[in-house]
Amino acid sequence: MKNYSNLNLMNFLTPGPSQLYFTVEDHIKKALKENICAISHRSKAFQQIVVHTISQIRQLMNIPEDYYIVFTASATEIWERIIQNLSIENSYHLVNGSFSKKFYDFSVSLKRKASKYEVALGQGFELADLPIPEQVELLCLTQNETSSGVSMPLSDIYELRKKFPNAIIAVDMVSSAPYPDLDFSQIDTAFFSVQKCFGLPAGLGVWIFNERCVEKSLALEKAGISTGTYHSISSLIKNIKNNETPETPNMLGIYLLGKVCEDMNRRTIQAIRTEISYKAGLMYYALRESKNFEIFVKEEKFRSKTVIVADVLQTPASTLINHLKEHQITVGSGYGAGKDKQIRIANFPTHSKETFELLADLLIKA
Amino acid sequence: MKNYSNLNLMNFLTPGPSQLYFTVEDHIKKALKENICAISHRSKAFQQIVVHTISQIRQLMNIPEDYYIVFTASATEIWERIIQNLSIENSYHLVNGSFSKKFYDFSVSLKRKASKYEVALGQGFELADLPIPEQVELLCLTQNETSSGVSMPLSDIYELRKKFPNAIIAVDMVSSAPYPDLDFSQIDTAFFSVQKCFGLPAGLGVWIFNERCVEKSLALEKAGISTGTYHSISSLIKNIKNNETPETPNMLGIYLLGKVCEDMNRRTIQAIRTEISYKAGLMYYALRESKNFEIFVKEEKFRSKTVIVADVLQTPASTLINHLKEHQITVGSGYGAGKDKQIRIANFPTHSKETFELLADLLIKA
Repeated sequence: MKNYSNLNLMNFLTPGPSQLYFTVEDHIKKALKENICAISHRSKAFQQIVVHTISQIRQLMNIPEDYYIVFTASATEIWERIIQNLSIENSYHLVNGSFSKKFYDFSVSLKRKASKYEVALGQGFELADLPIPEQVELLCLTQNETSSGVSMPLSDIYELRKKFPNAIIAVDMVSSAPYPDLDFSQIDTAFFSVQKCFGLPAGLGVWIFNERCVEKSLALEKAGISTGTYHSISSLIKNIKNNETPETPNMLGIYLLGKVCEDMNRRTIQAIRTEISYKAGLMYYALRESKNFEIFVKEEKFRSKTVIVADVLQTPASTLINHLKEHQITVGSGYGAGKDKQIRIANFPTHSKETFELLADLLIKA
Repeated sequence: MKNYSNLNLMNFLTPGPSQLYFTVEDHIKKALKENICAISHRSKAFQQIVVHTISQIRQLMNIPEDYYIVFTASATEIWERIIQNLSIENSYHLVNGSFSKKFYDFSVSLKRKASKYEVALGQGFELADLPIPEQVELLCLTQNETSSGVSMPLSDIYELRKKFPNAIIAVDMVSSAPYPDLDFSQIDTAFFSVQKCFGLPAGLGVWIFNERCVEKSLALEKAGISTGTYHSISSLIKNIKNNETPETPNMLGIYLLGKVCEDMNRRTIQAIRTEISYKAGLMYYALRESKNFEIFVKEEKFRSKTVIVADVLQTPASTLINHLKEHQITVGSGYGAGKDKQIRIANFPTHSKETFELLADLLIKA
């Protein structure tokens, strides 16, 4: 296994897993010193870690006090738990890439009447076009489609809230949180995983939901519909009220998430957002300037700030990717069918302005 | 959060989470240096890690080549996946503690006809007594009940195989693997989590199953019964055939598990088993010698070697537990109702003979 030993000087601008947040290594060393991995997940010491992590996430993302914040193993798991707990019969999905499509597929697998409105990769949704039925139970939105670099404007989410006041609105913000300044009071549930913008080792998902979701889940249980087992909403909230998790969780991951959120709160979310906007502006500028690229998402309002996708005109894209690796930068390849024709550049809080300036130079010269 | 900063010299003889295996810290440092957390979970480099980890587990536990080994987030999750994938209508559970009871509860939550045969805490099962129906689909056994320290003799498991050749036999070996020299050809599926005997940070479960399980799961799907989504057997095997996982997994956990299994293989499983037997013998001797304790599991053949439970006669048990902490040893408290009356001592591969000798001295004097 020597072939990844040369990775230690690399900057990973990949859309997840990605470069670890620059403070993570020190936090891991401290956790080992303090034996965080050996203490009981039912101990006071671990309950305090849970309290700390949740309060730091809440502060960072401005999540209302009456919204629950709980832990799962991945955002993938949360797709499953949302369908299991928040849909009795149907769900509706806006699909414009591989991940929004998988969310839809999960509903099919769980035997719901799943419907979708699908647009081509690289496109966003025009609200006037959407044939969403008025009585939709669960409306699933992907705020940032990691496969195609399409972002949904927050104002569009708020419009959907107005149009469908009775639906549960679920927002996948896996590869954008905590960048979007989402008004949580306008949605019912949202989620992310930690190996994207939070720059943490993979293996932890964060699920945020409100009291309406709790009520919906209880309604399913009353109707005799299984909501799952240990990670049903009722089991999760019973435990989190005691600052615990139903199972022995990824304790190190929960500890590290709290520490990184604390670091980000110290830096301030405003500063992080400003820097991400700056780096995104720089990158889209470089892609426009170079004759070798075409920005994949044509409409500016749909362009993601955190996952930037471009067609590479001189294919295969792997030639460019290897060239960038020589400069200690790894960008992501395209997803699925776009693998050989596109690059995907992650623009996360840990990625420095300097790295982006170097990458912009390299892309303009490429 | 200063109140756990004094934990750094402690020896955790707790039944999970427990003391990290003594090589884990170095492996984590190497993983950070090699950027294991930043590489793609679809990369060749990570596929090689998956191959390595699976081959080391297979060697360590002598798992036949035709048994699948896949990863989940916890053993708790595997209870759910087993019921979802391996029972169309019913499951039968031998219950003698909190964890075997939870396995049963999961089947109820998933709307199966779940039956159980329950004995009091601290007791094992006499095979002649068991009223298991001949047509049972899924027979769930807990080889080592972490809450009560009762172990099921392997010969009893093999007897059940003979009696119920058509049932799928599932074996929870969460707090004993890799200690029991289980003949996998006599069971269909088994599982464990990594924060017990493997001495790893929590957040990873390992699920082992054979082709019969795959067929059963496909039969459910053909019958229109949901087997879940990303962690259905069909999704897991589709991915593991490519040395991948359906979701972005706990990559660091998978890497570390491979490294620790490699370390254990170097030490040899025979040496590890011999040492665990020696330490168990020592501990049961000390508990018998002292007038302050009574071994909780009365019948010797049912006594666990890896989780040793004793009644503390001079209650509360917390006085004793605090006394041991002064000698840098933390043992577990009793589980549930036994919390104030019992201690639980983990006897895992990372716990040294020297620590056990010290603990035996302390218990005899206590």
